[in-house]
Order: sequence, then structure tokens, then C-alpha cells
Amino acid sequence: MSTRLADLHVAIVGLGLMGASLGYDLRGHCRRVTGIVRRPEAVAEAISAGCVDDATTDAASAVSEADLVVLATPVLTILRQIAEYGPMLKPGAILLDMGSTKVEICRAMETLPEHVQVIGGHPMCGKEVAGLAAAEAGLYRDCTFVLSPLPRTSELTQAIALELVEFIGARSLALDPARHDRLAATISHLPYMAAIAQVMHVDKMASEFDPLVWDMAASGFRDSTRVAASDVHMLMDILITNRAEVLSAIEHLQGHLQSLYELLGDVEAEPEDLRDVLDTMAQRRREWERVRRLSED
Amino acid sequence: MSTRLADLHVAIVGLGLMGASLGYDLRGHCRRVTGIVRRPEAVAEAISAGCVDDATTDAASAVSEADLVVLATPVLTILRQIAEYGPMLKPGAILLDMGSTKVEICRAMETLPEHVQVIGGHPMCGKEVAGLAAAEAGLYRDCTFVLSPLPRTSELTQAIALELVEFIGARSLALDPARHDRLAATISHLPYMAAIAQVMHVDKMASEFDPLVWDMAASGFRDSTRVAASDVHMLMDILITNRAEVLSAIEHLQGHLQSLYELLGDVEAEPEDLRDVLDTMAQRRREWERVRRLSED
Repeated sequence: MSTRLADLHVAIVGLGLMGASLGYDLRGHCRRVTGIVRRPEAVAEAISAGCVDDATTDAASAVSEADLVVLATPVLTILRQIAEYGPMLKPGAILLDMGSTKVEICRAMETLPEHVQVIGGHPMCGKEVAGLAAAEAGLYRDCTFVLSPLPRTSELTQAIALELVEFIGARSLALDPARHDRLAATISHLPYMAAIAQVMHVDKMASEFDPLVWDMAASGFRDSTRVAASDVHMLMDILITNRAEVLSAIEHLQGHLQSLYELLGDVEAEPEDLRDVLDTMAQRRREWERVRRLSED
Repeated sequence: MSTRLADLHVAIVGLGLMGASLGYDLRGHCRRVTGIVRRPEAVAEAISAGCVDDATTDAASAVSEADLVVLATPVLTILRQIAEYGPMLKPGAILLDMGSTKVEICRAMETLPEHVQVIGGHPMCGKEVAGLAAAEAGLYRDCTFVLSPLPRTSELTQAIALELVEFIGARSLALDPARHDRLAATISHLPYMAAIAQVMHVDKMASEFDPLVWDMAASGFRDSTRVAASDVHMLMDILITNRAEVLSAIEHLQGHLQSLYELLGDVEAEPEDLRDVLDTMAQRRREWERVRRLSED
């Protein structure tokens, strides 16, 4: 197999936000970019959008012809597709996924025949809107793209995955699957659960106390709860396959809320204790924003 | 006193984000806009920025000459300024505040001499950056501006406050102080506490498990925790003067997180129960966004 991304025939399974955006970036650069879709109407939609060179519902043929197959579907679908399509790949061809959790996916990849090259991936970006219509070139620019090579993953496969990540403008970060899933629970899945819980509170206040609460909502509420509007199908698969880590993260968050509750309860006696925590966390948050902006310049 | 905003001499106490932004909007429309600042250097800064016609550190003189005095400082400072400046206003002049909580402020206004007209206000907008440098014309456009008239507030005062709100492009919402404070705790102060708690979790994970967690943070974390970088002085005053409502809101949030924890713990047996909650909350959040966008068009 060629050692350059440009020489590869890439098949992208699923042309939603993530898959179609990847297509926009790779089309014209790779030898050929084929989209694999479920609905017959989606073939014409993909061609018309221009995110792939060609598209098909015949996954078996397309997967067996490709040099690099990218799974860009929700996690439970990826698990099914690894089992179904994995064995169809030609010898030396690469299977990469873009699923939001990595432990179960990499475990499933491990069971594939030896002739298939496998590597886990997770681009840390997205929007609260899903689907081909929301896809765009450059979606991955400046995002962190986690790569989880398996013990069996060859150096060539790792090099090609890295070339793809860099070509689409992302920053690669190598993490083993368990470490990825714990960090993703902290930084991504917990914010989702916290946003849902906040909308639950507003919804309850609106129905039991005062519907005007929705009129009061401004930019603070908008940003704090943006991810609550995320695609539920995608999120359910994430939560199901990262349940233990998300449960642990919720416990931690409850502990921190309890600390804040106690500090606020005691604020007239000891205002400095609460102020110190708020100051420190504001500094941490600003420092993260500063570093993030530097890295995007 | 004149019945038109344009004829009034307005004094704005505090030229931070909120006060200076109001100055940019009112200057040129009102007869005169005077800024009242604490630091002598701030006089030249305000004049040079152009947010007021003139500025002074001599609060007593400026307040006693104005037709409308707007307090644009943190809540505990507003409480002191009501007591100190309130009695200095000339007969019939209006004292309006823009503080983020209303119960204690309106209670303090109630104690002022009868010759002073008083009305509570709270524009539901802001940024996580503070100060004159962050101020801008149009900050209040499309925001909800709560007005809390007191029983003693005259119709003329209410009409002028409403004219101001409409002139700066905001939507007025009349609420009694207690109702305002409960709704603000739900929609604004709780998202702040939730954001702080999330940063506490990430900070703890970074120090005790893996500093790479900061590198994984993307747009979800960015938005969910944006308000954690808010001005701590302002937030401390809010929390101190709305303690009971914020404590109650934290309790509610913990209850909703506990529900999510239990639903996720049981997700393999009853996935539909969790999915239903996530679906419903995603719909509520999307509906709010849709209505909000319509109202801004």
C-alpha cells in the first residue's frame, strides 16, 4: 500500500456532520473519496453537496475496494460496522473510526482478522446540529484529534493517520483508549449532562413556578446549555459505552456543587473561602482560553 | 421634570462594562451624560473613550445636579451608594440601578426620602470580561431589561425608565423583586455555579490524574464554562444578596443530576427512560433558541 494519503482511495461510512466534513477536506487531495450511506436518496444528496467523488449504499463493495475506511457514525453503529465491514477490508487496508468513546471500539477492532490494519480516532469537535447540511470544509481545523493506536497497529498506519489529522488542520494527541474515555467524560460528556440538568431545572421552574423564566434567559444560559441540544442518538451511544466514567464524573460534579453549596451557606461568616475558590477557577478558565487562543494563532 | 429622556441630564455611577456601554448609547441623545468614577485617572479615560460628555470623581455634586442617576456598579456597592447618594438627589429626580439582584436593592430604595423617585432595573446581558475597555455601543440590543417599580414609583418614572429601555434596544420585563431574584438564580446564577463546579472537576482531574485533560477541551467545554471566567467581585455580590435562592437552585440541580445518574446507571435495562429525558430537554433547548432568534429578527 502507498505511504501517502494522497494516493489512497478513502471510503467514509456515514455522511453526517463529521463524515461529510471530512469528505469536503479530503476530496481532491486523495485519489478518490467514496461516501457510504444508508438511504438511497442520500447518494444524490452527497454528490450534489460535493463532499465526495461518489457515493453508494453498497457498503460491501465500497469497503472492500478502499485503502482507508473511516467510520463516521454513532458509537453503537461503529461497533456493528467494525464486526460487519472489518473482515471485508483488503489486506493492509486501514480501518479508522471517529467515534466519541474508544474503549469498546478499540476492543472490537482487536478482534478483527490480522490482515486488517486498525486505529481508533476521535476528533474533539462538533456542533449541536447534526447531518450533511451542517457539514463544512475546515470543521477539523485547530481541533484536537485523538489517535488510539492498538498494539497491532503498524507504524505505516500510524503515519498515515497522522498525515490525515495534520492535513485537515487538526492537532494529534495519542491516548490509550481508557485514558481517552476518562478524559472525554470529564471534558465533554459531563458538560453535556450538566447542561441537560440545567435545562431540567429551568423546565421545572417554568412549569411549576413561572414560565417567564424562559424570557429571562440570556447569553449565560445560552452558552451553558448549548450542548443540551446535541444529537440524542449520538449522545446515547456515548453514554452507554462510557457509562462508568460518566457516572464517576457526575459524582465528582455533585461533590463540587456540594462544596460550593456549603461555602455559599457560610458566606457571611467566611466570604474569603468562597471568593478564593471562585478566583482560582476563574483564573484556570482564563488560562485555558489564553493557551487555546495562542495555539490557534 | 421633563417627561422625555432626551431632555434629561443623566449621571452614570460606575463606568465599567455596563455603565460605559449605557453611556455610549445615551450620549448625544440625552441633554448631557455625566460619568461618576472613583479613580482620578478614570476621568480622562472615560472622556477619551467617548462614552460620556463629562466625568468626575465628585459624586456628591454630580448626583445632586442630575435628573436621572443610574447606578452601574456591583450589588453591594449599589447598596452603599443608595444610602449615600440617594438622599442627595434633587426633588423628583430618578434613581435607577442596574444591579443583578433586586430584593435587597429595592428594599434599600424604599428607605430613601419621599422626594426621590426610585426604580429597580436589571439588564440581562453581559460578558465574561469586565471594565470600560470591554464596553460598547449596542450592548443592550435585544436583551431583556427587567424593571422592578416600587409601590411608590410614579407613572412618569416608570414611563422614563421604559423609554430608556426601549431607546437602547432592550425588551422590558416588569417583575417584582422576589420573583426577579428567584428567576435570575435559575437562569443566571445557577449556570455560573455549575460552570465553576465543572472547572473544579477539570482542575482536579488535571492535577490528580492527567494534565492532558486541558488539551482535550473543545467547544463544548468552552461554552459550558464560559461564565466561570466572570468578574468575581460582581458575582460575589450577587451570591451574597441572593444566597437563599441560589442555594435552593443548587439543591434542585443536584436533584436533577441524581436523576440522570440513576437513569444512566439503569440504561442497559431501560434505555428509553434516559432517552426520553434527553430528547425532551433537547427539544426545550431548541425551542428556546428558535423563539429567541425570531424575537431578534
